[in-house]
Amino acid sequence: MDFKVITMGHGSGGKLTNDLLDKGVFNLFESKTLQKRHDGAVFNIDGKIAFTTDSFVINPIFFPGGNIGELAVNGTVNDIAMCGAIPKYISLSLIIEEGMIFEDLWEILAGVKIATENVNVEIATGDTKVVEKGKGDKIFINTTGIGVMHPKANIDMDRIKSDDVIIVSGPLATHGMAIMSVREGLTFESDIISDTRPLNEMVFSLLEKFGDDIKLLRDPTRGGVATVLNEIALGCKVGVELVESTLPIETQVKAACEMLGLDPLYVANEGIFLAIVNKGVATEVIYELRSFEFGTKSKIIGTIKGEFPGKVFVKNKMGGRRVVGMMAGEQLPRIC
Amino acid sequence: MDFKVITMGHGSGGKLTNDLLDKGVFNLFESKTLQKRHDGAVFNIDGKIAFTTDSFVINPIFFPGGNIGELAVNGTVNDIAMCGAIPKYISLSLIIEEGMIFEDLWEILAGVKIATENVNVEIATGDTKVVEKGKGDKIFINTTGIGVMHPKANIDMDRIKSDDVIIVSGPLATHGMAIMSVREGLTFESDIISDTRPLNEMVFSLLEKFGDDIKLLRDPTRGGVATVLNEIALGCKVGVELVESTLPIETQVKAACEMLGLDPLYVANEGIFLAIVNKGVATEVIYELRSFEFGTKSKIIGTIKGEFPGKVFVKNKMGGRRVVGMMAGEQLPRIC
Repeated sequence: MDFKVITMGHGSGGKLTNDLLDKGVFNLFESKTLQKRHDGAVFNIDGKIAFTTDSFVINPIFFPGGNIGELAVNGTVNDIAMCGAIPKYISLSLIIEEGMIFEDLWEILAGVKIATENVNVEIATGDTKVVEKGKGDKIFINTTGIGVMHPKANIDMDRIKSDDVIIVSGPLATHGMAIMSVREGLTFESDIISDTRPLNEMVFSLLEKFGDDIKLLRDPTRGGVATVLNEIALGCKVGVELVESTLPIETQVKAACEMLGLDPLYVANEGIFLAIVNKGVATEVIYELRSFEFGTKSKIIGTIKGEFPGKVFVKNKMGGRRVVGMMAGEQLPRIC
Repeated sequence: MDFKVITMGHGSGGKLTNDLLDKGVFNLFESKTLQKRHDGAVFNIDGKIAFTTDSFVINPIFFPGGNIGELAVNGTVNDIAMCGAIPKYISLSLIIEEGMIFEDLWEILAGVKIATENVNVEIATGDTKVVEKGKGDKIFINTTGIGVMHPKANIDMDRIKSDDVIIVSGPLATHGMAIMSVREGLTFESDIISDTRPLNEMVFSLLEKFGDDIKLLRDPTRGGVATVLNEIALGCKVGVELVESTLPIETQVKAACEMLGLDPLYVANEGIFLAIVNKGVATEVIYELRSFEFGTKSKIIGTIKGEFPGKVFVKNKMGGRRVVGMMAGEQLPRIC
């Protein structure tokens, strides 16, 4: 029987679930461990690993620059990379709403496949559930990943100290504004495209070259750069000073933020990371990042300070400072 | 500000999310890796590991014998155990519907905590998302786990051959009928209680004593015993013969199945497992299982056959055989 949409039976664990897996998923992903059809995957791994999970509930599931499938892989790959690890295996768990169009599902799974191939990560194990129409929203995806620690990585918030330098690998607020533009029906000369992408290559290159001069890596997704820096300021009991004029923001992203009254510091990103590095290597780090396609707009944006622990400030051109607190409430729901 | 219900802001990644984590989740779970507040957990692990994922969408979220939190931990712990591994770390990812009552969330998280303590598994990393009212159903939980392979485990479907014996560790269909009784408002002299529980102790004891005479372990959740055995019959190209009179089913579970017209072989279980073992150790395996509280009703229920590969039969008292196919369509939606 051929179906055009997902039915409750596809989540029953019975024949329809098996058909979905056999005809679709297992063929698509060609994973040796998946083919074993056991309750889990078994493989060898040695030493220090990173383990990270994320559920993706983004709306809409297709957006300029990607879909929820690519986002789910890139998001978890990036979280692993932020730990200083090399992504090896991920799990893929789908919660599908009854009535979802099969073509949409295949397109999303194709996005998953491409994203895993880009970073050479294996889908080792998975799960599929179906909920009644009106009890979900097309599809939610959980990816959980395992990576092997880079031998030179020494990522630890506790190693941050005064005068360390804050670097961002690319322009701010692109993912969030791509999604918001679609939702709000904003049009610009050219579309704002989500920056969803894997960051692992840039990260490994930094770890390889600068080792433990790289003290912290974080991808500022939900809550944006401001939220991550507030967590660091609070967690390390340090002050954070950003220089407003150095913040890289694309012209039309800035325009979209202004139209919607959003501060780009709080808007979600998917394809950039913050690195807190030893002052002595900051310029070289920028030089290295700029050798990558997606690092050409990397910038030094601020410094760690001993004063005002727990606070994040932005210094403007006049030398004035404003406090950038942790985001209160919701700004952009379901952005990832 | 104190909230009685979950708001969209609790999923924003900003202040409310941090409050939820600081005041609630991190205190509750006391996990060293969670306290680090990084994007992922980092730990050492060596050798062969099992990696398994499951999303739980059970409805209702509270049921006789447990809640979705306990179920989510036990389910993943059991999938790890079925691989022949000792559960060590799990991730916990929540997708909460706006408007969920906080008290319900804490009760579920308490269930998570108790279940992890029962089996000494650490919640290493997590994620929280919130979706708008009507776009989810109270709470969905993904747990993904890592276990270290038991040194004597040699679980592999390809090792199954004729004359191997099929053992079940306890009575069938209990979880599914506990949920269905609630949904259908059936009442019996005493409630049917879900069998959600960790199976790791029984499994390790078998692996310790019988090593590679234990060829396959599977917990027959969605789709029940029939579906798992069909997967084995198809996957190993063998026949499976069950003896009807040996199938352990509690009286009131049987009654409930009859009232609802359900075949207990297709009903979901959460607290039993199937073991396919070398004929020579079958009686000793039963003897060992019966030394455990939840193994007293373990039974030899069938045999692997060379004839009729890919088929599962049930032999009745008269010697007649009926084919038990893979479950077609849905029987019990959202049972786990």
